[in-house]
Amino acid sequence: MLDAALADDTASRACLFEVFARTLPHGRRYGVVAGTGRVLDLIRDFRFGEPELDWLRENEVVRPATLDWLADYRFSGTIRGYREGELYFPGSPILTVEASFAEGVILETLVLSVLNYDSSVAGAAARMVSAAAGRPLAEMGSRRTGERSAVAAARAAYIAGFAATSNLEAGRSWGVPTMGTAAHAFTLLHDSEEEAFRSQIEAMGPGTTLLIDTYDVERATDLAVEVAGPALGAVRLDSGDLPALVASVRARLDALGNHNTKITVTNDLDEYTIAALAATPVDSYGVGTSVVTGSGSVAAGMVYKLVAHRGDDGEWMSVAKRSAKKSTIGGRKNAVRRLDDRGTATAEVLYVEGLEEAGGSAAAGAERPLLVDLVVDGVPLDEHLGAAGVKRAREHHVEALRELPLSAFRLSRGGEAIIPTEYAAERGR
Amino acid sequence: MLDAALADDTASRACLFEVFARTLPHGRRYGVVAGTGRVLDLIRDFRFGEPELDWLRENEVVRPATLDWLADYRFSGTIRGYREGELYFPGSPILTVEASFAEGVILETLVLSVLNYDSSVAGAAARMVSAAAGRPLAEMGSRRTGERSAVAAARAAYIAGFAATSNLEAGRSWGVPTMGTAAHAFTLLHDSEEEAFRSQIEAMGPGTTLLIDTYDVERATDLAVEVAGPALGAVRLDSGDLPALVASVRARLDALGNHNTKITVTNDLDEYTIAALAATPVDSYGVGTSVVTGSGSVAAGMVYKLVAHRGDDGEWMSVAKRSAKKSTIGGRKNAVRRLDDRGTATAEVLYVEGLEEAGGSAAAGAERPLLVDLVVDGVPLDEHLGAAGVKRAREHHVEALRELPLSAFRLSRGGEAIIPTEYAAERGR
Repeated sequence: MLDAALADDTASRACLFEVFARTLPHGRRYGVVAGTGRVLDLIRDFRFGEPELDWLRENEVVRPATLDWLADYRFSGTIRGYREGELYFPGSPILTVEASFAEGVILETLVLSVLNYDSSVAGAAARMVSAAAGRPLAEMGSRRTGERSAVAAARAAYIAGFAATSNLEAGRSWGVPTMGTAAHAFTLLHDSEEEAFRSQIEAMGPGTTLLIDTYDVERATDLAVEVAGPALGAVRLDSGDLPALVASVRARLDALGNHNTKITVTNDLDEYTIAALAATPVDSYGVGTSVVTGSGSVAAGMVYKLVAHRGDDGEWMSVAKRSAKKSTIGGRKNAVRRLDDRGTATAEVLYVEGLEEAGGSAAAGAERPLLVDLVVDGVPLDEHLGAAGVKRAREHHVEALRELPLSAFRLSRGGEAIIPTEYAAERGR
Repeated sequence: MLDAALADDTASRACLFEVFARTLPHGRRYGVVAGTGRVLDLIRDFRFGEPELDWLRENEVVRPATLDWLADYRFSGTIRGYREGELYFPGSPILTVEASFAEGVILETLVLSVLNYDSSVAGAAARMVSAAAGRPLAEMGSRRTGERSAVAAARAAYIAGFAATSNLEAGRSWGVPTMGTAAHAFTLLHDSEEEAFRSQIEAMGPGTTLLIDTYDVERATDLAVEVAGPALGAVRLDSGDLPALVASVRARLDALGNHNTKITVTNDLDEYTIAALAATPVDSYGVGTSVVTGSGSVAAGMVYKLVAHRGDDGEWMSVAKRSAKKSTIGGRKNAVRRLDDRGTATAEVLYVEGLEEAGGSAAAGAERPLLVDLVVDGVPLDEHLGAAGVKRAREHHVEALRELPLSAFRLSRGGEAIIPTEYAAERGR
């Protein structure tokens, strides 16, 4: 595409690309935007170096003129979109990229890879956080996703309300609080469970979390209390019939006087098993596979579409694909969330530039603007970057969730977006 | 774990860790090992640099002595396992790491992240290849997985029999054949579909593939032939009711005399929709989401377990976790695939060092050894690395598939491993 567009001079046409999802992942009532800060970092650093150019040249993938263009590539356009941590609904213009066709089209795969994966994780994580009803969740799924995606998953889960991660690199690069745990291998390495427990307490102090299900949970509970004393921080269960097991471990800890020793569970949890443990005396959860794989929806289904370009006359023209089932609403959009008088969201309203017929209802209500500047003339805005950006996204997510009606937090699958998306004619915006 | 083990001197104990999957992904009859070559690369380069050490120090994650150990980290152990491209079954010791506890335990997350993701993709890809029954498949799912996982997915799909990828970086770093495609944006950018087609043919020649479903498929088919002539390489359909659409486009192309123009389809395909197109005149498939997300099983479920360590007396001791439902068979294993006299696999036989009672049947048959050296004394063997390693893995995969009974290629879900895994007492191995 790039090669042909550079050759026929359409490459320089000013274009507006839009990232949106046609639907939410199956059974979800709202989506959570995540990955925006990572996208901005990656776009800022997106270059074609000598190894890449050499390979493209040797394999004659593009013409020499295109190689020259790639060698100089540096994004100089403007990106607006939803804040990271914001909620989204079908059609929400999560990210809009305004640039020449060439500059914009080349970012499609990068932008979608990041937003699809990170938002998928964040959407799943948000459901787990609401299922946990205030008990802290730790992300422990690095080993269940690609080695780089693992860092992104820890970051996205944190934005959606997880308390910590076992991924230290996510702590280093994004400021996510980290935690550790001992695995069964640590117990098996030692000549006895007692030696393993003593070694861990020697190194970490009695406030550590001891893994008690390597051999026999009941004996290990007694041993943990015997070795660590009343200050034992927590015990961890990673297998077995959790509700029954948790209750018996709690009773045993209490009988031994360890009322302050907490119980953490980590056995293939997802939002449903977390909810099923609501009535048990669990204190915290460690979640692996289900959160890093988006709990069954590992790609958020976002697409990156050309919605408008500027013609030779300088006027912007809406463009849209019209094929079956996948049609796109062309045109530049302004997005607001309509709120009723109690501040509860009632609709995602998209004001479409150039839309003739006003679709949707004309219901009244306050409107919270959703689009903010992310990159201006090629420069990403600092507030969205780094650990500070992650912290802001996490805070913003909490604010945005407060606007949702209670029914948004139902766990059952088979629902649909909790508020409708309305396309409306622009009103002087 | 590392901190405590270095403090109590168990860190230096010689250990044997084993990577295996307790079960195959739901409905799969065989698994496909992928990621091995990437793991070897990553282990060779696995270091803790100043930024990482500084962060660990500032956050007091580990003691100073552990920081010193990390600063010098360099894997010096030995790794044996299944060849990349090999098939695996529940319990197959896909990778075994023999090293000190400290050197081995620190690789767990890295090794599992790579093998779980890559093998998940390869397992799904292999089913699509068999469903396609000889028609070529292209991997086009980069945008539906993390930005680094995208390269790994293209590589894994190729090992499992895909013909090409749209991910150029996978071409550059792993030698996977690459292909491109024009998106709807390219058509929308131009003032008319005709201008877009002319531009593409100007740049790429008439042998290119034109996307014909931006507006109206029938008109675009006529236009494509008119613009490109009889040498038009292919047309692509990305939406709509594919079986009916494919048949009508084929009829139209034939009526226009373009008997050699191929049809490629790319609309949210997976192994089932590919199979459903078997009777239609499709020539090739482009597969996105489903292959890069492991078609519903995005993590292969492999675990990394300590199965033996050498005691103070110098003797190896088998160790195993015994908790409910997740027990592990301890001990060093030799793995062979038992074949009947026609060369068809009948069992995965694991000879376990120190196993007292001989489990499984004592059926006769040829035995193909499955374990090969991958890393010797810290040095990865060249034959498994780089583009040449990928090519070997792809070839080996074809060889290994030939041993499977025909029923292994049933598409229906709900099956189980096509051959049993038998644990047997070692026989002088």
